[in-house]
Amino acid sequence: MSVRLNTNYLSSFVSSEELANIQPQVNVAHELLTSRTGAGNDFLGWTTLPVDYDKEEFARIKAAAEKIKKSCDVFIAIGIGGSYLGSRAVIEFLKSPLYNNLPKDTPDIYFAGNTISAVAIDELLKICEGKDVCINVISKSGTTTEPAVAFRVLRALLEKKYGVEGARERIFVTTDKAKGTLKHFSDEAGYETFVVPDDVGGRFSVLTAVGLLPIAVAGIDIDGLMNGAAAAMEAYKCPDLAQNDCYKYAAIRNILYRKGKTTEILVGYELYAAMLNEWWKQLYGESEGKDQRGIFPASVIFSTDLHSLGQYIQDGMRNLFETVISVENNPVVFPIPDDPANIDGLNFLSDMDLNQVKKTAMQATLLAHVDGGVPNMLIELADRTEFSLGYLLYFFELACAISGYMLGVNPFNQPGVEAYKKNMFALLGKPGYEDARAALEARLG
Amino acid sequence: MSVRLNTNYLSSFVSSEELANIQPQVNVAHELLTSRTGAGNDFLGWTTLPVDYDKEEFARIKAAAEKIKKSCDVFIAIGIGGSYLGSRAVIEFLKSPLYNNLPKDTPDIYFAGNTISAVAIDELLKICEGKDVCINVISKSGTTTEPAVAFRVLRALLEKKYGVEGARERIFVTTDKAKGTLKHFSDEAGYETFVVPDDVGGRFSVLTAVGLLPIAVAGIDIDGLMNGAAAAMEAYKCPDLAQNDCYKYAAIRNILYRKGKTTEILVGYELYAAMLNEWWKQLYGESEGKDQRGIFPASVIFSTDLHSLGQYIQDGMRNLFETVISVENNPVVFPIPDDPANIDGLNFLSDMDLNQVKKTAMQATLLAHVDGGVPNMLIELADRTEFSLGYLLYFFELACAISGYMLGVNPFNQPGVEAYKKNMFALLGKPGYEDARAALEARLG
Repeated sequence: MSVRLNTNYLSSFVSSEELANIQPQVNVAHELLTSRTGAGNDFLGWTTLPVDYDKEEFARIKAAAEKIKKSCDVFIAIGIGGSYLGSRAVIEFLKSPLYNNLPKDTPDIYFAGNTISAVAIDELLKICEGKDVCINVISKSGTTTEPAVAFRVLRALLEKKYGVEGARERIFVTTDKAKGTLKHFSDEAGYETFVVPDDVGGRFSVLTAVGLLPIAVAGIDIDGLMNGAAAAMEAYKCPDLAQNDCYKYAAIRNILYRKGKTTEILVGYELYAAMLNEWWKQLYGESEGKDQRGIFPASVIFSTDLHSLGQYIQDGMRNLFETVISVENNPVVFPIPDDPANIDGLNFLSDMDLNQVKKTAMQATLLAHVDGGVPNMLIELADRTEFSLGYLLYFFELACAISGYMLGVNPFNQPGVEAYKKNMFALLGKPGYEDARAALEARLG
Repeated sequence: MSVRLNTNYLSSFVSSEELANIQPQVNVAHELLTSRTGAGNDFLGWTTLPVDYDKEEFARIKAAAEKIKKSCDVFIAIGIGGSYLGSRAVIEFLKSPLYNNLPKDTPDIYFAGNTISAVAIDELLKICEGKDVCINVISKSGTTTEPAVAFRVLRALLEKKYGVEGARERIFVTTDKAKGTLKHFSDEAGYETFVVPDDVGGRFSVLTAVGLLPIAVAGIDIDGLMNGAAAAMEAYKCPDLAQNDCYKYAAIRNILYRKGKTTEILVGYELYAAMLNEWWKQLYGESEGKDQRGIFPASVIFSTDLHSLGQYIQDGMRNLFETVISVENNPVVFPIPDDPANIDGLNFLSDMDLNQVKKTAMQATLLAHVDGGVPNMLIELADRTEFSLGYLLYFFELACAISGYMLGVNPFNQPGVEAYKKNMFALLGKPGYEDARAALEARLG
């Protein structure tokens, strides 16, 4: 089992009776999801993706990644939200947050088009100077402002540098399978295209071409990811909480939320997990944060943030709970060197592997935070491999769907994301938005 | 004025009468702080630091930074919590989060000793291979586990590479002025030392040697930072809310908290502000998160996270408020290129500077989130300079002290940080902690 939910630290907060009592609601959520009768049922493609993905496209992703690896020093993935968080999370988790700074035989990877910033695009162009560059623009519609602007700039750069013909070999487009101007333009221009499926929302898209192409460019085994996700899909078919850790995670979140634990902190113990936290925050925040409800998703990396948010978690408002991810098998070891001078008084740790110290710090923190009144769940991930991470991604996606249905929301829409966009287009003078402009401008302070 | 608090978007949430009614409590907090009679009054060194800092040491910091710049490719700052968040925040804000990847004439800068990780230290050693290295270990006691372990490893690396004599010129120590084994050892070994003042807590230490040496190595003008902080110190002497934006920020937080707005989200609009958010989270979380109370500090970077946590903020639980930092003057401009094909339909933006689009996105979001029921304050920062950032750092520190006193806590201690440490030392078998060990081990699941 690649993922195990350890609830031993939860016993003073959630009883087994409570879990038994909520089983009927879990069953309802399970039925809504599997019968495809729940809200948002047009967006359930991710549920079966690990087995029914497009094998021909999958092979093209691998081939494109090989081509990209051979032809560039810098690969730029252009996308925002679900169009970059998944791939970035996987690359940092399996490779490193310092991937670009470490020696390797794959290209540097940068993420662009995820913000509106003159400084950021200016810096990216500096980084590209004198380097061979390939890009992958990832946008369902092709009209989202942030990636569209980055694509304008970087396509122009490539065409200037390599000519229109040369640029064609360096531009890869992940977009709608048929609709939209980006798809049409790409076909005309001769760019290789990949598909953002119609029935998979952005935050559930990491195991589609959206995530997989950048992930493959980093030299990560995408078969392993898919196999892990497929194993999780198989493992979580029965809704019985005694057998289904994924549903159990969803159920416990729901129980805690109803007790006033309205903020969940996802805790990692390695810096390489920081972007996985960010992916999870979008997944849960966007799926559940609606209709004036939902658990607020926050995240930390310990022990780092024990020296930052640790004080609050130990002693602050008691509306928190923590979900801790522990990677169990750590092949990279590092024994603490002995210091004859023992300046720091730590010679009692000499020769102890840092993984052992890390694990002890985690146990110590679990006990301390539980004593402080913070419910803690522990997700034990077998190892830092493609298979286990694919398993975990599916675990979180499935738990999110069950959790959202238990909460009584549509876990697959994001109506609130449109509000700022409508205002922005009106204020920027986009054709069709003229009516709202004057009223908005009058409110600006 | 480098920092201006714009409360125009707050009018439907906090009335001027409410502000007037809370003035007496602001006055009490002001009196506690300025008369040095409040809780934690041993730790008020930061209040006058911008004018009464040690000028001789300040000159030594600059000289050491010059020496470091000349003698290494990689500079490693070793520290955890307040011993790295301040310098990293300033370096990323004024230089770049991609500082290490951009062309420059200053060394690469890495932060170590802020986690317990075999993988992280292994990667750092790979990065150091074939490079000239200098280190700065930053630890008041010298016995904190994370930085102490990193110092063991990196001191050994330098001594192996350059010999004991050579390493001496590359090791810089920021620690207690007189006490502690790290200070004694450094004096014996002949390392240049700098001071962590007794009366400045870690989270308030960015403008001491703790923050300033790494900041100066990055080529940042530390005089500018201090001058900005001094200007803020001068600006916020009168407690009248009509004249004091810093105290007004503290007062509004307090008013909102009492209305059930228990989570504050600090919002930046540039990726370079992400670590400033982290610094702020430690400052506020550790100062106020105690005695089962305090505002939970969270953070986002927009527009990036409008496609992640944006949905929750717009429509989720209404226990949130946002504080938005806007940098007003942006000398780096980037006009959006025109695209004759207009694939993305964005030609109505052609030739518009990205800074203008960013500002409009911010205004659009302020209005949308206010309409969604989220109180918003706007901190207008004049520009991205040393002076303005120094001003802002002092603004946040002073507001934090006032806010903590208004909340009725000691803003300058962090008793909760000890809980996990005690457990950890017991579980690791540290001499003196034997009694607790068996009971803790019995609770591990």
